[in-house]
Amino acid sequence: MNNPASHRLAIYPGSFDPVTNGHVDLIARALHLFDNLIVAVAQNPSKTPLFSGDERCAMITESMRASEVVSELARVETVVFDGLLAHLAVARGATAIVRGLRAVSDFEFEFQIALTNRTLAPSVETVFLMPNARYTFLSSTIIKDVARHGGDVSRLVPPNVAVRLKTRFAKP
Amino acid sequence: MNNPASHRLAIYPGSFDPVTNGHVDLIARALHLFDNLIVAVAQNPSKTPLFSGDERCAMITESMRASEVVSELARVETVVFDGLLAHLAVARGATAIVRGLRAVSDFEFEFQIALTNRTLAPSVETVFLMPNARYTFLSSTIIKDVARHGGDVSRLVPPNVAVRLKTRFAKP
Amino acid sequence: MNNPASHRLAIYPGSFDPVTNGHVDLIARALHLFDNLIVAVAQNPSKTPLFSGDERCAMITESMRASEVVSELARVETVVFDGLLAHLAVARGATAIVRGLRAVSDFEFEFQIALTNRTLAPSVETVFLMPNARYTFLSSTIIKDVARHGGDVSRLVPPNVAVRLKTRFAKP
Amino acid sequence: MNNPASHRLAIYPGSFDPVTNGHVDLIARALHLFDNLIVAVAQNPSKTPLFSGDERCAMITESMRASEVVSELARVETVVFDGLLAHLAVARGATAIVRGLRAVSDFEFEFQIALTNRTLAPSVETVFLMPNARYTFLSSTIIKDVARHGGDVSRLVPPNVAVRLKTRFAKP
Amino acid sequence: MNNPASHRLAIYPGSFDPVTNGHVDLIARALHLFDNLIVAVAQNPSKTPLFSGDERCAMITESMRASEVVSELARVETVVFDGLLAHLAVARGATAIVRGLRAVSDFEFEFQIALTNRTLAPSVETVFLMPNARYTFLSSTIIKDVARHGGDVSRLVPPNVAVRLKTRFAKP
Amino acid sequence: MNNPASHRLAIYPGSFDPVTNGHVDLIARALHLFDNLIVAVAQNPSKTPLFSGDERCAMITESMRASEVVSELARVETVVFDGLLAHLAVARGATAIVRGLRAVSDFEFEFQIALTNRTLAPSVETVFLMPNARYTFLSSTIIKDVARHGGDVSRLVPPNVAVRLKTRFAKP
Repeated sequence: MNNPASHRLAIYPGSFDPVTNGHVDLIARALHLFDNLIVAVAQNPSKTPLFSGDERCAMITESMRASEVVSELARVETVVFDGLLAHLAVARGATAIVRGLRAVSDFEFEFQIALTNRTLAPSVETVFLMPNARYTFLSSTIIKDVARHGGDVSRLVPPNVAVRLKTRFAKP
Repeated sequence: MNNPASHRLAIYPGSFDPVTNGHVDLIARALHLFDNLIVAVAQNPSKTPLFSGDERCAMITESMRASEVVSELARVETVVFDGLLAHLAVARGATAIVRGLRAVSDFEFEFQIALTNRTLAPSVETVFLMPNARYTFLSSTIIKDVARHGGDVSRLVPPNVAVRLKTRFAKP
Repeated sequence: MNNPASHRLAIYPGSFDPVTNGHVDLIARALHLFDNLIVAVAQNPSKTPLFSGDERCAMITESMRASEVVSELARVETVVFDGLLAHLAVARGATAIVRGLRAVSDFEFEFQIALTNRTLAPSVETVFLMPNARYTFLSSTIIKDVARHGGDVSRLVPPNVAVRLKTRFAKP
Repeated sequence: MNNPASHRLAIYPGSFDPVTNGHVDLIARALHLFDNLIVAVAQNPSKTPLFSGDERCAMITESMRASEVVSELARVETVVFDGLLAHLAVARGATAIVRGLRAVSDFEFEFQIALTNRTLAPSVETVFLMPNARYTFLSSTIIKDVARHGGDVSRLVPPNVAVRLKTRFAKP
Repeated sequence: MNNPASHRLAIYPGSFDPVTNGHVDLIARALHLFDNLIVAVAQNPSKTPLFSGDERCAMITESMRASEVVSELARVETVVFDGLLAHLAVARGATAIVRGLRAVSDFEFEFQIALTNRTLAPSVETVFLMPNARYTFLSSTIIKDVARHGGDVSRLVPPNVAVRLKTRFAKP
Repeated sequence: MNNPASHRLAIYPGSFDPVTNGHVDLIARALHLFDNLIVAVAQNPSKTPLFSGDERCAMITESMRASEVVSELARVETVVFDGLLAHLAVARGATAIVRGLRAVSDFEFEFQIALTNRTLAPSVETVFLMPNARYTFLSSTIIKDVARHGGDVSRLVPPNVAVRLKTRFAKP
């Protein structure tokens, strides 16, 4: 068991394709609970993401700079990863994996993943946080669909992400 | 926001009427994440608990002594409380409220309570942990019902609790 | 089937013990969809409500006066009822029963009631509306519990209701 | 493990206060799968049922006589029980406990009970059957509420039960 | 807010690939509540539908002609759309978006979409209706799978749709 | 209705890509309830399975040989099928289709399929069994993802399956 007051590191994994206001909200909450945080962008080569791993990392960093966590940036690291989350967690000595709990269908899938991770890395606890109620039903997939059709997503994502989505879907 | 490596205190509230193996499992997980833990036994005068608040506290302490967390007892405090959890959390300077996430019906009620607590105490984060899969569907209510009818609950609760349940429901 | 542009009346039933911000939000939404609205306060003699039926009606009217629906009050009627909702709906010639859909556990119980009402009053459609996301997890029961212990509910209920709750739970 | 083609007995437990069309539907399905069936009426002294255990048994038998299972009555036994279902199952040598799976909130509670029963009686399998879709959301509690207020329940319960409900709730 | 007794238009969006008995049931319910209805067939170029948008529209019209809503056809319009539903709703001056609420997994996704639409078009209310219990678990995807393998779908879809499915999947 | 003590055959369908400890657990439970069992491997040409139908069958047989059901192998048949499950069930004279009920999202999809199968084959009952709690959240998809990245799946699948997964994903 950890010694009291030891440094505790958490990993917040996801696709972040792109990062939403809900994700930034969760990063702030995780920084309240842990000393250091790795935001881990899953490469997911089998899916075809809209933005590259590096773009997604850059958007997360930009979004944090424009948010309330700007003063805590030294405690956050953003990485792209492709292997198993549990291996990353063990390799980095993480105490916890942080996940936002949005909705019921999430809930089940999250449990499957969390219990599998527990099998692979028993010392790493999965911790579920509740996003701000405003963001409970926010989804990167729906946001991309809205932006693709020229809809206004400026209330759902940070400003820099809104700009990038607009550019990406601009008619040539 | 907390300074890194500051002491972090969590509160684990519940009825614990009585404490189960699932609760003890969750206490161990919470001690992995936080420096100190208050196990807060809700008095709930409107319900009629089987055991008094003091008995429930005693059973929790006994159960921890007989478990893997025995070496961490100095980091745990057990209290009976009657007011609002959010007030207790603020009064004690807690960083987080810890809850076990068992099941879907739980999930909704937990969200209602967590969001209400967030309104009352915005600086206290509710953190959901996943019990060991074996304990996912464990319930104090069902355990009491089994014990009341003379069923064997020795695989569901710590030994000291099994004894107390047997005594409580013994035919005169 | 209704003639187009005929007047359409909806009934919004509930315990409203007491009315919350979420209820007022739903009344506004229902008035957007229907020409007239009956807010029907279930007497529920088997439960022991905190406020009498008349008090609950008065609080609803006060709350509407202090909200965005103040200009629409002529289209709303508030009644206490004790019998079957389906009978009330038929007696009043309602087109629809309006319900807020908050959460998953709700969802099932709401379906049971709605399908039973459909059996009793096939011409009355049950219509589910989504409250503002901020109110998704709001519950009269939890609000009463907070107020009972002296917690601040001013962000969860209209001001007049907050006052009444404070008075009701004031220590003598 | 059972020898092939051995006699298999199932227990279908419930409150049956009163039996509904959904219950009768499930009895028919269980008789399709098992050689013998015990319909076990839980006495539940802590709740206050509307009908006594004996009345509930009588209504079940009457309802089966008026249904498609009339020719299979020799394979069904109806009993009132007060102890633990798992003990009854073992005492009678049951192979399975049969439960109807109605809805999501059910689902979780049913799992809690089934897993507890598995702990108490590992050789007895809990088997979930799906009622006819028409009966998915049927509930004895709601039916009693309708009947109490003079509503028509004749499409929700067998005719004999409708008569008994009417008599029970008749104004003196 | 709408003036009382103004004309109210609703949009019922979906893939309708193909229309099922459940969809026709919901159209009838929507026509009970609204003066005019647009059935909006989502083109969804990213998915590969079985039937073209025009075919899906034609099947909807044929199915309505063969149903109880035949006398109300003047109040229904069927359109194919490709952009954002919220934009269509605003452009057409719709009061409401109508959705059938089938099941729990639906429920969450529907909430995500409805709350996104609320952000994009705050004046358009999403209204959830409950299909006939017989159709609660009906799915176009499963129906196509059954038809593809030569199964009989005549009880799940209108006759004209059954014919088209048979033709489409006929062995050459 | 079946004569008592007649032979009863159940079908346990799935993708089994690959078979997990949870599947083997369910086969054992099904053999407790039925005289004969067909484990039916869905070919699913539209998906791209990791293992061929024949490989999946072989893995199931190997896994059963290494498990507690080894003495019951004469009562189990493993088949690959491509058409409709309901047709297979009728063609083979099955009494029941057996499904494991893992989680909430499952639950809804399972109901859709089960009710469709009931329409196609009314005499075949779908029976839901509860896997061992340890396997409640186990998923072939996640297991493949873990194995693909070199994670250890030896506690989630039978030994022969672990070997095959390792070989399949071995770096050349």
